[in-house]
Amino acid sequence: MSEPFSSILETFENQYPGRDYTIEIVAPEFTSVCPKTWQPVFGTITIRYVPDRRCIELKSLKLYLQQFRNEGIFYETAANRILDDLAGVVAPRHMTIEAMFTPRGGISTTVSAVFSTR
Amino acid sequence: MSEPFSSILETFENQYPGRDYTIEIVAPEFTSVCPKTWQPVFGTITIRYVPDRRCIELKSLKLYLQQFRNEGIFYETAANRILDDLAGVVAPRHMTIEAMFTPRGGISTTVSAVFSTR
Amino acid sequence: MSEPFSSILETFENQYPGRDYTIEIVAPEFTSVCPKTWQPVFGTITIRYVPDRRCIELKSLKLYLQQFRNEGIFYETAANRILDDLAGVVAPRHMTIEAMFTPRGGISTTVSAVFSTR
Amino acid sequence: MSEPFSSILETFENQYPGRDYTIEIVAPEFTSVCPKTWQPVFGTITIRYVPDRRCIELKSLKLYLQQFRNEGIFYETAANRILDDLAGVVAPRHMTIEAMFTPRGGISTTVSAVFSTR
Amino acid sequence: MSEPFSSILETFENQYPGRDYTIEIVAPEFTSVCPKTWQPVFGTITIRYVPDRRCIELKSLKLYLQQFRNEGIFYETAANRILDDLAGVVAPRHMTIEAMFTPRGGISTTVSAVFSTR
Amino acid sequence: MSEPFSSILETFENQYPGRDYTIEIVAPEFTSVCPKTWQPVFGTITIRYVPDRRCIELKSLKLYLQQFRNEGIFYETAANRILDDLAGVVAPRHMTIEAMFTPRGGISTTVSAVFSTR
Amino acid sequence: MSEPFSSILETFENQYPGRDYTIEIVAPEFTSVCPKTWQPVFGTITIRYVPDRRCIELKSLKLYLQQFRNEGIFYETAANRILDDLAGVVAPRHMTIEAMFTPRGGISTTVSAVFSTR
Amino acid sequence: MSEPFSSILETFENQYPGRDYTIEIVAPEFTSVCPKTWQPVFGTITIRYVPDRRCIELKSLKLYLQQFRNEGIFYETAANRILDDLAGVVAPRHMTIEAMFTPRGGISTTVSAVFSTR
Amino acid sequence: MSEPFSSILETFENQYPGRDYTIEIVAPEFTSVCPKTWQPVFGTITIRYVPDRRCIELKSLKLYLQQFRNEGIFYETAANRILDDLAGVVAPRHMTIEAMFTPRGGISTTVSAVFSTR
Amino acid sequence: MSEPFSSILETFENQYPGRDYTIEIVAPEFTSVCPKTWQPVFGTITIRYVPDRRCIELKSLKLYLQQFRNEGIFYETAANRILDDLAGVVAPRHMTIEAMFTPRGGISTTVSAVFSTR
Repeated sequence: MSEPFSSILETFENQYPGRDYTIEIVAPEFTSVCPKTWQPVFGTITIRYVPDRRCIELKSLKLYLQQFRNEGIFYETAANRILDDLAGVVAPRHMTIEAMFTPRGGISTTVSAVFSTR
Repeated sequence: MSEPFSSILETFENQYPGRDYTIEIVAPEFTSVCPKTWQPVFGTITIRYVPDRRCIELKSLKLYLQQFRNEGIFYETAANRILDDLAGVVAPRHMTIEAMFTPRGGISTTVSAVFSTR
Repeated sequence: MSEPFSSILETFENQYPGRDYTIEIVAPEFTSVCPKTWQPVFGTITIRYVPDRRCIELKSLKLYLQQFRNEGIFYETAANRILDDLAGVVAPRHMTIEAMFTPRGGISTTVSAVFSTR
Repeated sequence: MSEPFSSILETFENQYPGRDYTIEIVAPEFTSVCPKTWQPVFGTITIRYVPDRRCIELKSLKLYLQQFRNEGIFYETAANRILDDLAGVVAPRHMTIEAMFTPRGGISTTVSAVFSTR
Repeated sequence: MSEPFSSILETFENQYPGRDYTIEIVAPEFTSVCPKTWQPVFGTITIRYVPDRRCIELKSLKLYLQQFRNEGIFYETAANRILDDLAGVVAPRHMTIEAMFTPRGGISTTVSAVFSTR
Repeated sequence: MSEPFSSILETFENQYPGRDYTIEIVAPEFTSVCPKTWQPVFGTITIRYVPDRRCIELKSLKLYLQQFRNEGIFYETAANRILDDLAGVVAPRHMTIEAMFTPRGGISTTVSAVFSTR
Repeated sequence: MSEPFSSILETFENQYPGRDYTIEIVAPEFTSVCPKTWQPVFGTITIRYVPDRRCIELKSLKLYLQQFRNEGIFYETAANRILDDLAGVVAPRHMTIEAMFTPRGGISTTVSAVFSTR
Repeated sequence: MSEPFSSILETFENQYPGRDYTIEIVAPEFTSVCPKTWQPVFGTITIRYVPDRRCIELKSLKLYLQQFRNEGIFYETAANRILDDLAGVVAPRHMTIEAMFTPRGGISTTVSAVFSTR
Repeated sequence: MSEPFSSILETFENQYPGRDYTIEIVAPEFTSVCPKTWQPVFGTITIRYVPDRRCIELKSLKLYLQQFRNEGIFYETAANRILDDLAGVVAPRHMTIEAMFTPRGGISTTVSAVFSTR
Repeated sequence: MSEPFSSILETFENQYPGRDYTIEIVAPEFTSVCPKTWQPVFGTITIRYVPDRRCIELKSLKLYLQQFRNEGIFYETAANRILDDLAGVVAPRHMTIEAMFTPRGGISTTVSAVFSTR
């Protein structure tokens, strides 16, 4: 996968830096491709974070996630990479990701990970 | 946004100040306008608070929330500002807000914040 | 509201006083009247308690709650008064009340309170 | 209400005029204002039609419906007017509208109407 | 039950008399009293009608239904009487009523009736 | 099964014999016993009928259905017999029964039958 | 698949042959094997029939369906064969089958067929 | 109620005594009789336990619960007695019971209790 | 869109041509691209058909639908084209398509069409 | 049950060993056989684990679970054995299993267990 995926992400200044508060974003139309079978993969990405100085701009997040459309990537890598990319760009106080993928072979998978500065 | 939004809020005396109890208010018909695209925004505002000396009068809360109808305001600002306005008027022992917004571009967002004197 | 409302409540002896256990009662057909507009109010009353020596007799509880049918009473007062009345009659080790009211002006309200001897 | 509301509607050529087929559009974020109380009104507009030579362009439909945001209009008028406006612009073989409005005073209302050339 | 119950009902002129269309009204907070046990009764009243020259004014309908609050009336009588009262006042082209009552003794009951001039 | 089961059923006079209307009764707490294994059987009995001169009194219906509690009876017999008993007592213009039984061996069964004088 | 599958089915005499009534049987734990990939297949079989002289004995039906557990059989064949087997054994006045299979490759399939003597 | 109810319960040896694990059993077809009105009572019994040396044999549990079918017993007594009986027979490390009863007079009741050796 | 999309579709012989029966296929993971905005589109394709001599092979259907992944195509064209392609290949006695697309700008769309030889 | 069941399981290297994250796998199409009655058993297996150096390869997990199809095994043994097999192969930092089985005799059972190195 080409590195500059996260370069599309934009942020804006957190107007309430004095308060710990949570932003939850649910993106149910994630799709990528299985790197072994090249079959399409569908999932829902849920991101929860406590912003520090910057917040994620939502339109750029949508475009960032669309970049995975034709990428071959494993479930575990997708979840961890999205977390790394987003945390790298907004430097949150706390961030979690939950990536739920639809069933394949009758089996569904969810990968969850946490980034924290505390 | 014009400042005197919160001046419309009314309160009444808490009849049970000796007890910590919780009032949850769900307002599923919140609407405002996106300050960038001027497209309408729809959401559900949930407020939970432990009153101290004053409680929020519900009809005035309804009118307060209706003032956002044609205001351009970001998700994060709306949630934090409603929390600040309500906490400023009733001075609760504890208050949380949860503002859930309907999907835009296939992505939905929820902003949660807490006010506490403890 | 006339005082002797709680005099209708009956109790019976707890057969298992040696054990802390919980009784949850859900009464979804509560109705009273708004003291300001005299419009009817509808709600669901949920009571959870750990009995000490006495338990609430259910038929008398039903009749007790029916007494509110034509009473003008605020949400917060109804919830706290029912808690006081029931706790006064059965002297529980612990008791909570949750009073959920249906929407008025598009806004619904839930009042929760706790009584505890611990 | 100013007449040129429907002038914002755009259409495109039906590519399959030789076949009767149905297009259903659900717009759950309709809002207008009650002409008597000036309180906001919320509803879901469902349109089903069999196109003849033209189809409704969806973005222009969204903008058309947004024009009602600050208009005072009765339920029955809103439903019948939207039907008249859309049928007037696309001249469908058959069209139905269903306008469901959220509860007011504990009572919800749905208005349904049919336009047909058959 | 005193006769002038229906005198509270108000109507307004149907603005689209040239078209057969349907108005559905759902009132989930109906309550009356059982004429045998004097226990409260709860139900949901659904009215669907095709207006002719007049439509039912909703606020007067709410007040009309509230008149049953302390009346002793059987399920079958309530449903048929509401149908007669409403049809008598608006003279619809077609009208149905569905009155669903909550369980008593583990058994729930729904009464449905139709008024038609066709 | 002893014959006089239906003798417990009571009726009352239909106050609206001039109108065809429908009464639906749902009794979700039916229980009997399997005549082969003597294991308990659970089900929901739904009765819909258009009354002629008489209506079924609900409390007597509850007691009638309770008589099956310890009776050994097949699904098909239970459904048809209840239909025969009720139709025999109220002589309806039309009556249907739907008897849904909970799963046994992973398989659930519903028996439906119709009585009609038309 | 070995032919004598249906020989395990048992029937009993219909006690109400003078009345057309319906028996619906839902068996949600059907499993067989894909004849091409030898991967397991899971589904829900729903049978509805109007009995003539005989009814299907349920325990034998359960054993009949279990015979498919390790058989390789296509969806369309399974549905039609079960219909043929059951109709052959009970000679119903009318019978339908609906066989819903869980998703494979993200795609789910339902096969429905009707047997009728009318 | 005759004492030897629990004598029907059978157990088998826990094959994994070296590990704390949980077995949850849900029995939604519990029925008994109200000792005051002799009306039938319906409920769902949920048992969760951490086995020590013995596990509950499920078929004997089913037969044990069926013994309550025609017994007159209060909600609170039923829940606590089942807990005592089961804990007495399998001597678990930890056990909870939750007995949910269907509504009577519009009010539903759940009784929960815990047995623990810790 | 390149023409040979349907060339990937495979069929197999209908084993029950003497009987009219229905095959319903639900494919909830359809995705394509909007030809105007190049934003991704997501939908569920439901196909119901009565086979004549040939049935659709499911794996080839999955691959056929995946070809739309990066194609720019309007809702109405997608639905009608899939119907034409499938009907062209299996020559069914009857076929319907229902294409439900997820909301864009808060508005969701479903296109339904029918192919019939009758 | 033959020992080498777990030999079919494959693993791959955890690409994010520096982070504690969770993988949840839901397999709703588990089936085995009751060792006493030889009747089929159906259930849903949910596995949650924090990988250390290796992750479970999903296709091999599917094949591993399919090996139980014709094995006679008790609920408690199945859950604990799957946990032991999987933990043995991937040596996770933490792993839980939840095995929910469909009702038999009206009673459903869930077995939960935890493996931890902490």
